[in-house]
Amino acid sequence: MAVNLSVPDPKDLHPVAGVKLGIAMAGVRKANRRDLTVVTLDEGSQVAGVFTRNRFCAAPVQLCRQHLGTNVGPRAILINTGNANAGTGEDGLVRAFSTCVALARHLEISPEQVLPFSTGVIMETLPNDRIEAGLPAALADLKADNWAAAAEAIMTTDTLPKAVSRRVEVGGKTVTITGISKGAGMIRPNMATMLGFVATDAVIAPALMQSLVREAADSSFNRISIDGDTSTNDSFLLIATSQAGHDPVTRLDTADGSALRDALIDVSQRLAQAIVRDGEGATKFITVRVDGGKSEAECRQVAYAIAHSPLVKTAFFASDPNLGRILAAVGYAGIDDLDQTGIDLFLDDVHVATEGGRHPGYREEDGQRVMKQSEITVRVDLNRGSMSTTVWTCDLSVDYVKINADYRS
Amino acid sequence: MAVNLSVPDPKDLHPVAGVKLGIAMAGVRKANRRDLTVVTLDEGSQVAGVFTRNRFCAAPVQLCRQHLGTNVGPRAILINTGNANAGTGEDGLVRAFSTCVALARHLEISPEQVLPFSTGVIMETLPNDRIEAGLPAALADLKADNWAAAAEAIMTTDTLPKAVSRRVEVGGKTVTITGISKGAGMIRPNMATMLGFVATDAVIAPALMQSLVREAADSSFNRISIDGDTSTNDSFLLIATSQAGHDPVTRLDTADGSALRDALIDVSQRLAQAIVRDGEGATKFITVRVDGGKSEAECRQVAYAIAHSPLVKTAFFASDPNLGRILAAVGYAGIDDLDQTGIDLFLDDVHVATEGGRHPGYREEDGQRVMKQSEITVRVDLNRGSMSTTVWTCDLSVDYVKINADYRS
Repeated sequence: MAVNLSVPDPKDLHPVAGVKLGIAMAGVRKANRRDLTVVTLDEGSQVAGVFTRNRFCAAPVQLCRQHLGTNVGPRAILINTGNANAGTGEDGLVRAFSTCVALARHLEISPEQVLPFSTGVIMETLPNDRIEAGLPAALADLKADNWAAAAEAIMTTDTLPKAVSRRVEVGGKTVTITGISKGAGMIRPNMATMLGFVATDAVIAPALMQSLVREAADSSFNRISIDGDTSTNDSFLLIATSQAGHDPVTRLDTADGSALRDALIDVSQRLAQAIVRDGEGATKFITVRVDGGKSEAECRQVAYAIAHSPLVKTAFFASDPNLGRILAAVGYAGIDDLDQTGIDLFLDDVHVATEGGRHPGYREEDGQRVMKQSEITVRVDLNRGSMSTTVWTCDLSVDYVKINADYRS
Repeated sequence: MAVNLSVPDPKDLHPVAGVKLGIAMAGVRKANRRDLTVVTLDEGSQVAGVFTRNRFCAAPVQLCRQHLGTNVGPRAILINTGNANAGTGEDGLVRAFSTCVALARHLEISPEQVLPFSTGVIMETLPNDRIEAGLPAALADLKADNWAAAAEAIMTTDTLPKAVSRRVEVGGKTVTITGISKGAGMIRPNMATMLGFVATDAVIAPALMQSLVREAADSSFNRISIDGDTSTNDSFLLIATSQAGHDPVTRLDTADGSALRDALIDVSQRLAQAIVRDGEGATKFITVRVDGGKSEAECRQVAYAIAHSPLVKTAFFASDPNLGRILAAVGYAGIDDLDQTGIDLFLDDVHVATEGGRHPGYREEDGQRVMKQSEITVRVDLNRGSMSTTVWTCDLSVDYVKINADYRS
């Protein structure tokens, strides 16, 4: 049911020098599922991350933040599906740390060099014994060209694995960027309710890592919304193994710096959009663009009011140009001094509304034509400033409800 | 499909001295539907209202606010279904005013003494000629005991009419309070996305009217949420015809004043809850109570995060005690300094979570038992203050999506 998304061809996923991935079946929640992924990073790798702002953030997220703060140099990533280890209190922290200890022992590193990630059901006890028992198999499977398998192993209600890879010239060398992500429910920013891992062999000055991961997240995962629910476990990591052999990138306003940044943002955006394309029950991919705002913040308010409105989303599902619902969402977005007579609304190239009402040239059949497409751009011009923003979302279908009513069964 | 709600018996709906109601079929959107209601108020009646804060508020809402501001003394209310006259620009205002002029002519009053209300599809041209043509039939139908018919005539996607009536002693006289309301989609506060009209023959000092209607709305319609969409047309009117013959109520902190206030709030709450019980596709009635907040505002933030979460609402629909979803909603409600280890979660009498995780005594079968009920109370204790709030919502069902995907067809 995913919208214009297909299984990535393993041949298109370039290995990143310094990164190996291994998969295993640990039986975290159900037997015979690839639910455990270990990623090892060569010494000298740098990692920066951004995480959910949910105050009920999961134990592994809390631990991951701590471990990244220790400056010991991360050497491994441990990901399980089937259990989020969120809403699990002190015991959850102990169990998450226990898995780090176990993996660290195998790799002869310190537990703080392991970054743990969990995704799945909330408020269930993490079966860390099963995860620890699964580690030898995952370690035996470690290889550089295992990205496609890892993309599949981190899936929960995703219907398709999500992986993107590209190469870019930096400092006369070819640099590789490869990433994977997973959704598919509980998707909205702060941060974008998902797991995302992007690795590159580029050589990046440590001082740039955090701003790069922040900028990549803000341009991608923080601009998607499926159901407005911010997860307890959202995490996005940028990994740089420094093995490409070029001079370090120390600034982003150079040709090399901007080439690298643009490529990182491109990979991150495609991974983020893939999550929306595979949103729970999604049948349409919707781009919401808001122009003419006084600030980017108010553009985002309006864009998310549209992207979160169940009425707007069901209208997209029904291909019904009931476009007044979009105007209503603009109206309740929370901009107190908004003048409704200043708003223009477009559906792709169709001018739907102007001056507080229907555009004189708007015809229902034009709206209908666009609404039937699988990819639609909604554009709102607030006509009160020069700021813009774009977010991506999907429709709300009968299947969304069915999937979420059945998720645990 | 409404949750514990039945058709009101016309015999239980006491007439309010000074109020007459008339119904007609005007063919606003479809033929052979009672879609037009006229309410006349005797001279000397007072009216106060609260309206949607949606910046795309409908033409009749704009006009209604203006007319209430003129101090000419409202004498008539005109309500049509089938068309919201919202997102209709300058033309919509002209058309709404035209209906007021037409009704004013029949009643020999001024157009400013007519308060217009519209509900239905947004961004369609109001067929004011059909409404005006329907007025004679509605006027011929005017009677004091027509509340049940009016409750039915203002319905849109409601499955049942909503009307509540009660009597209370004030100043040694029996005062009547009778009200009607309609939902059923686009329900959330600011204000509560619906129409509500409550009339009483009580004699109330003019200075109290606005604070009474505000308090009644804040205790009722502003505490319900079905889908988080704030409509363009929400309106709630309090009408006092002053015919009960007691001394004017000039203060609310007397026995008479508080008896009247409590009765008004009770009627308003029951009308508001009826909207949730008949929420689009609703199968459960959920009370969300948040205690222990530092402010009522933060309690509301948390309560609405829960009440708006599609994941929480689908879990209720599925009777699935996937209660971590509630903790996740608490976490993303936007309280930046919230300590997850301080939160307690209860489902009716069942203590589900404490200290950031599952309560040691919680058993899945207890959660399951409560989740199967048609009425459920979710209680969150933030344990950081003494403020509380309560909101009412319903579950999110497959039928919600079907209804909203089909609404215009």
